[in-house]
Amino acid sequence: MADTNRAVAYQGPGEVAVIDIDFPTFELKDGPGVNPANVGRQVPHGVIVKTIATNICGSDQHMVRGRTTAPADLVLGHEITGEVVETGRDVEFVKVGDIVSVPFNIACGRCRNCKERKTGICLNVNPDRPGSAYGYVDMGGWVGGQANYVLVPYADWNLLRFPDRDQALEKIMDLTMLSDIFPTGFHGAVTAGVGVGSTVYVAGAGPVGLAAATGALLLGAAVVIVGDMNADRLAQARTFGCETVDLTKGDPGEQIEQILGVPEVDCAIDAVGFEAKGHGADSGHEAPATVLNSLMDITAAGGALGIPGLYVTGDPGGIDEAAKKGSLSLSLGTGWAKSLAFTTGQCPVMKYHRGLMQAILHDRVQIAKNVNAKAITLDEAPRGYAEFDAGAATKYVINANGYLDGK
Amino acid sequence: MADTNRAVAYQGPGEVAVIDIDFPTFELKDGPGVNPANVGRQVPHGVIVKTIATNICGSDQHMVRGRTTAPADLVLGHEITGEVVETGRDVEFVKVGDIVSVPFNIACGRCRNCKERKTGICLNVNPDRPGSAYGYVDMGGWVGGQANYVLVPYADWNLLRFPDRDQALEKIMDLTMLSDIFPTGFHGAVTAGVGVGSTVYVAGAGPVGLAAATGALLLGAAVVIVGDMNADRLAQARTFGCETVDLTKGDPGEQIEQILGVPEVDCAIDAVGFEAKGHGADSGHEAPATVLNSLMDITAAGGALGIPGLYVTGDPGGIDEAAKKGSLSLSLGTGWAKSLAFTTGQCPVMKYHRGLMQAILHDRVQIAKNVNAKAITLDEAPRGYAEFDAGAATKYVINANGYLDGK
Amino acid sequence: MADTNRAVAYQGPGEVAVIDIDFPTFELKDGPGVNPANVGRQVPHGVIVKTIATNICGSDQHMVRGRTTAPADLVLGHEITGEVVETGRDVEFVKVGDIVSVPFNIACGRCRNCKERKTGICLNVNPDRPGSAYGYVDMGGWVGGQANYVLVPYADWNLLRFPDRDQALEKIMDLTMLSDIFPTGFHGAVTAGVGVGSTVYVAGAGPVGLAAATGALLLGAAVVIVGDMNADRLAQARTFGCETVDLTKGDPGEQIEQILGVPEVDCAIDAVGFEAKGHGADSGHEAPATVLNSLMDITAAGGALGIPGLYVTGDPGGIDEAAKKGSLSLSLGTGWAKSLAFTTGQCPVMKYHRGLMQAILHDRVQIAKNVNAKAITLDEAPRGYAEFDAGAATKYVINANGYLDGK
Amino acid sequence: MADTNRAVAYQGPGEVAVIDIDFPTFELKDGPGVNPANVGRQVPHGVIVKTIATNICGSDQHMVRGRTTAPADLVLGHEITGEVVETGRDVEFVKVGDIVSVPFNIACGRCRNCKERKTGICLNVNPDRPGSAYGYVDMGGWVGGQANYVLVPYADWNLLRFPDRDQALEKIMDLTMLSDIFPTGFHGAVTAGVGVGSTVYVAGAGPVGLAAATGALLLGAAVVIVGDMNADRLAQARTFGCETVDLTKGDPGEQIEQILGVPEVDCAIDAVGFEAKGHGADSGHEAPATVLNSLMDITAAGGALGIPGLYVTGDPGGIDEAAKKGSLSLSLGTGWAKSLAFTTGQCPVMKYHRGLMQAILHDRVQIAKNVNAKAITLDEAPRGYAEFDAGAATKYVINANGYLDGK
Repeated sequence: MADTNRAVAYQGPGEVAVIDIDFPTFELKDGPGVNPANVGRQVPHGVIVKTIATNICGSDQHMVRGRTTAPADLVLGHEITGEVVETGRDVEFVKVGDIVSVPFNIACGRCRNCKERKTGICLNVNPDRPGSAYGYVDMGGWVGGQANYVLVPYADWNLLRFPDRDQALEKIMDLTMLSDIFPTGFHGAVTAGVGVGSTVYVAGAGPVGLAAATGALLLGAAVVIVGDMNADRLAQARTFGCETVDLTKGDPGEQIEQILGVPEVDCAIDAVGFEAKGHGADSGHEAPATVLNSLMDITAAGGALGIPGLYVTGDPGGIDEAAKKGSLSLSLGTGWAKSLAFTTGQCPVMKYHRGLMQAILHDRVQIAKNVNAKAITLDEAPRGYAEFDAGAATKYVINANGYLDGK
Repeated sequence: MADTNRAVAYQGPGEVAVIDIDFPTFELKDGPGVNPANVGRQVPHGVIVKTIATNICGSDQHMVRGRTTAPADLVLGHEITGEVVETGRDVEFVKVGDIVSVPFNIACGRCRNCKERKTGICLNVNPDRPGSAYGYVDMGGWVGGQANYVLVPYADWNLLRFPDRDQALEKIMDLTMLSDIFPTGFHGAVTAGVGVGSTVYVAGAGPVGLAAATGALLLGAAVVIVGDMNADRLAQARTFGCETVDLTKGDPGEQIEQILGVPEVDCAIDAVGFEAKGHGADSGHEAPATVLNSLMDITAAGGALGIPGLYVTGDPGGIDEAAKKGSLSLSLGTGWAKSLAFTTGQCPVMKYHRGLMQAILHDRVQIAKNVNAKAITLDEAPRGYAEFDAGAATKYVINANGYLDGK
Repeated sequence: MADTNRAVAYQGPGEVAVIDIDFPTFELKDGPGVNPANVGRQVPHGVIVKTIATNICGSDQHMVRGRTTAPADLVLGHEITGEVVETGRDVEFVKVGDIVSVPFNIACGRCRNCKERKTGICLNVNPDRPGSAYGYVDMGGWVGGQANYVLVPYADWNLLRFPDRDQALEKIMDLTMLSDIFPTGFHGAVTAGVGVGSTVYVAGAGPVGLAAATGALLLGAAVVIVGDMNADRLAQARTFGCETVDLTKGDPGEQIEQILGVPEVDCAIDAVGFEAKGHGADSGHEAPATVLNSLMDITAAGGALGIPGLYVTGDPGGIDEAAKKGSLSLSLGTGWAKSLAFTTGQCPVMKYHRGLMQAILHDRVQIAKNVNAKAITLDEAPRGYAEFDAGAATKYVINANGYLDGK
Repeated sequence: MADTNRAVAYQGPGEVAVIDIDFPTFELKDGPGVNPANVGRQVPHGVIVKTIATNICGSDQHMVRGRTTAPADLVLGHEITGEVVETGRDVEFVKVGDIVSVPFNIACGRCRNCKERKTGICLNVNPDRPGSAYGYVDMGGWVGGQANYVLVPYADWNLLRFPDRDQALEKIMDLTMLSDIFPTGFHGAVTAGVGVGSTVYVAGAGPVGLAAATGALLLGAAVVIVGDMNADRLAQARTFGCETVDLTKGDPGEQIEQILGVPEVDCAIDAVGFEAKGHGADSGHEAPATVLNSLMDITAAGGALGIPGLYVTGDPGGIDEAAKKGSLSLSLGTGWAKSLAFTTGQCPVMKYHRGLMQAILHDRVQIAKNVNAKAITLDEAPRGYAEFDAGAATKYVINANGYLDGK
């Protein structure tokens, strides 16, 4: 092991810093944000992972902006790819030296939901409710992975092993997207019903939106249209064959009609979530229901909405009382008249990561290029957070241990 | 044909009457509520059906209560079972004398959506938008079937022929539920993910709710719990093995916990729709989002909601501005945290009616008994509407031509 | 623990006996039929189960008849229900005192196939090939459960815990069918495409056939027809609402036509497998392809065949050279012209056992009655094998530790 | 209309010729191969199509080789794309001037199977059995489309209209593959379970095999491996990114292992059918079961086989008695041990053609290039048949009316 374990931690609204933390062991110890019921939990089924790549995610920003109850010194990071350096007593198939992808959802592999492939709502890892993640407020307290080392529980169940070390390191900037955004975007596309020949609209050109667009293309979509108000991100979407809608110019319907000849698509994906802002004349004001209402408008009858964008049960920073308790004013009548279906929730990464890995390893998709992945050092992470929050069309990948030098 | 064609028609808020109307021909003529673009439409693919049984539906009540823009003299009735008495020139397989069930959704069998089995959103029958129905406001203007005779377009596509006339007439009180509520309730169960061993909650013990409960049991549900504020309807639910929740006593969660040991079910069905009323302390006040918010509370993570209950795009009688335009204040964050899925819209009856017919004909289900079907004459229809609106635990079946005498 | 561990073991063609064996520990020790690569395997993830009910299965008979390479003293039994009496170090959620059902397929919960719910072809439990089972030749060597005690590996993953001990013991004769035949028959029905309103033919009225018929009814089948040459077993099928076809009277097509009016069904299930015998004039001669060819004949175009009946890769006792190497002369052209689909293989029990348990616990199905379950002592097991092989219409349940006294 | 209607017709084993035939009318008249029960059938729901492109198919070769009971002067051709020049009285939505793709399976759009999207086994078009096609022996007698004009029944149901005439004619060499081979190959891929990241083996590098490979790539397959004994066809497969296996060098398992590192794939497609020949040492001898047995060997446990290759119920030219009646000696035990699933039958083209059209129109796939499409004149058709039968790596597209001049 290295001499130190340094980590990116939340400090307060708008502020993250790199701090020193303890080395992980096979026990979940008390610390910032750790659920009391999880303190002292033994993890003989876990492994210690030396991080190779650990990415900054849009959902981290909710915490960093102070929109949650995250405590100071909470270690961030749920997008983790790394090398196994130590295995717990009860780990049977994962070996030291394996290069692995860590799904952001922590799952036990032993509860009803895991057995049904619903690893996003595992019943045994978060004492408060189904579902968990590393480095996230109210998710049980598992320490985040934007660090040199991190503990991964239930390793035989959770980890995806890359078949060849050299090949993995060569494609590592792509493979690092398997821990979250690629499966998450892909899940959005799958649950939106994307298939061969579909027309698709993706709300949001951040990394998850771009990953959703990539996923839709991989599923055979005929046309993928990405909407956003950020010109750089829209330009990024166009680099890999997407059409784009500039929401600063108004509602998406008209622009979609210019592209497709009709103002509707077969499938729609919400890659924005609850911090949505109004567009057109309302640009810039927070309008939490605007994305979903807009998607109901522009989805054809019989279509479906995949909703990987996060909606929360409580948002202390919400614009009004309804938003503060997570209520949205939705035009459900519009959706009902069109027989639309809606799928929400965390992506169960394990359902998809193996197939997406195969697509990467066999050069069928270039997710790193599509999301404009950029490696930064651990010390550069605070700046990465700031740039990302300012709207950079970039996916920041933290090179915590030097594996990515030269990428 | 008979000497006259008498029909049940909307007169104004709270009022229906039996009036004389023209005999149907193979042309859609102008009349109350007929879409101008449909006037004069030729229907050589249609048949004239002499009604055997034509039921009063909860969704008719929205019009009768004056909650829509339905014009006076609009002929009601979209639940139709009858005998074919004349066939159009282009009808090849349906024959005079066939006893048939008419799906409430009118579909052409020639558009993209019909080819994909989405007959609830056919593109060719309603000039205003996808989807249509007989005797319904803003649905194209196809004349309702609560009459002696009715025109059924695209007959080879739409009609379900019962294999044996005598057997059909013997089980006619069950078979008449195939035109709408049995498939509609069943669709609610299917889209809620009900399977063998599921625990299910059905909101609403009206006929669609009871049909949904029946459908859930047929699908192998372990426990079906029906919630309502109407004691008679709850008693009806208990007659065929359902558990019940009395919503006048409070939220369903606690009562569900008493039944199941946990306050959540696997699957939830909204058989109420937009005219929902509050329960417990809020009993009796209209609260359009209350059912859906309640269902998100009591559905377990990973579950699904089937929403056959109607939500409209505009409700002139809505309790506030949001309701008037069909907006609901939904706690989507709750649903998102649980990874719930939602399916809305008209049931595509054709997807289900044949299988359900088989279940009826082979005595595997007793839907007429479960919904407490009761035959009334055409002249009794206005009273039937009133009693149903007052909460009778009865499904009224109009015996327009005497076939049901003695049932 | 008890003083001794007595077990039912294969001795030679036609012979089983009750012998003394070692108590299980958390290691797979060498013994009859244990794969060398599995000898010494550590099982800290396992539990020791004191058997409550362990059933004789038709597939055991293949070994007992000497149609396999099973060695003498191989302990039989893969249908196991019991009480957990000791837990391995790595077991986290299963507790001593739990009453549990053990799926007959042993699965690790850590390989690709397990993660995809394909527990019948787990990659980590049988060194020879995917898939394993207790007490079965060439399946890795896991010791059978027709004994007082048995080791169950990967217990947190494999076991289904019954929620209440008293309730479980009360319904234990039903619940014991969850370890194999109920899910296996149900899987046959599911993969045959059985749904609400289907017409279904089940080839074979042994316990798996009767379980398939029960499963088909639970899935909402309109008509279930069971075919066999054994009058007692057909009578048993009629006790719970099945129609029957007596194959001593000829091919099933004609008899199906008498029942349904057409000579074809929607869905067909092969609950016989490779030891099929000819029927009608060919009665009694082994004819390994006869069931499948017959099912292709009597399944309607667009239908499907579920094939839970075992077909082997090699059968030393086969009637000819082709049969000896597991080749069948199949009229695939018939199936192709009808666009039939075929699903083979071990049932992945875990996919179904929880839902079926719920159906049992809530009195929605009576599988023990339907298969005519009968408790016998361990010492009576040899006679049970003989009676079952002679065609008794009975499912024998071994009461190894007295829990079933009085059932 | 043109002055004459010339057509490609079967003359006898190994011989086709261009002959003059009557112009089609809206009645199915008597002629070579017309089923007596279909003679005189009225077709007011039909349209007359002036052919733009009508392709030679491998399944035509079965007739041309004399392996069927096709009579002399049977007009060939079931792959038809054209312009509507006359519409029957009851056609409502298809218009004169529309450029359309005609699915090779004729379907009524009014029977149970059509309503379930199973248009390959329509119940109303072939008096002998479910399913029909143009220009094919024992399929009802609908006249083939390798002619100037052809009658298409049930036109509103069957036809796929291209949205823009100019765009359609520009991409016509791709769009003509929508009538059969592209959906057929795609169906093979879908039923083999191909998804994002799958490894796939396609048996046969003829046009259907190449279309299956194209379809697999469109579905996101990671690796597609095509096996054949024809070097030119294998070279063609490599032009669009497939790996290849040269079956003259032996069984595919070893070569697959060289490509993938393991000797098995996730999904396998049989694009050969009953006229399969042995490979390796057995090269060149007919061996009807060899493809399916080989696919069971090289498909991983849990995989599936899509079988679009034709298997017949009777083959007068079969190598032995079993083959003559369509029986194959299949190692089903191998498939069963691996829990394989098998899907057979005609592709229901309508299920796929719209999505594939979208993929073509939006430049997501280049099927014409992948199958090496080549336009020939009607008079060149006999030579095209001969070259294709001799193994040319070419898909012959008959330019019957000059629309393709210059393509």
